[in-house]
Amino acid sequence: MMVLVTYDVETKSADGQKRLRHVAKLCENYGQRVQNSVFECLVDPSQWTDLRYKLLKIIDEEKDSLRFYFLGANWKRRVEHVGAKPGYDPEGTLII
Amino acid sequence: MMVLVTYDVETKSADGQKRLRHVAKLCENYGQRVQNSVFECLVDPSQWTDLRYKLLKIIDEEKDSLRFYFLGANWKRRVEHVGAKPGYDPEGTLII
Repeated sequence: MMVLVTYDVETKSADGQKRLRHVAKLCENYGQRVQNSVFECLVDPSQWTDLRYKLLKIIDEEKDSLRFYFLGANWKRRVEHVGAKPGYDPEGTLII
Repeated sequence: MMVLVTYDVETKSADGQKRLRHVAKLCENYGQRVQNSVFECLVDPSQWTDLRYKLLKIIDEEKDSLRFYFLGANWKRRVEHVGAKPGYDPEGTLII
């Protein structure tokens, strides 16, 4: 299933930038970064439990906001891209 | 239906900041801003056609990236929030 992870953090601080880098690096193990703070993660339920647990360990819950959107298995029909930086399909096909 | 609009723009330029403000203002007419560049827009098909048209007029397609995620009618079960800044349900109930 596809889980969209969106992340909001005050990246003016070095700590915030570091947390964003960690979130990005972690999510890229499961899918890919499609915008600065938007990650599309292709996971099975057990991977999702793992990823969610790790994300919550990285963020500062007092300062950062994480939102998860569960797009399911038929996620491709739920996504449209416009403009620069086309997204890449973690399953292999370019989605523009 | 719920359409998630995520927007990536170089906001270091005054023009980019202006475009982000315009995108936010427009989306807030249809739903609400849940993160800096993430907007949850509750629309019917005709409103979506209108919103999409207006968004494409605001952005610079050479520089900005827009992604639309169609979460459908049962969108509430597809969303989870963690951390700061809880999102507000455009239909009235607080989603934490």
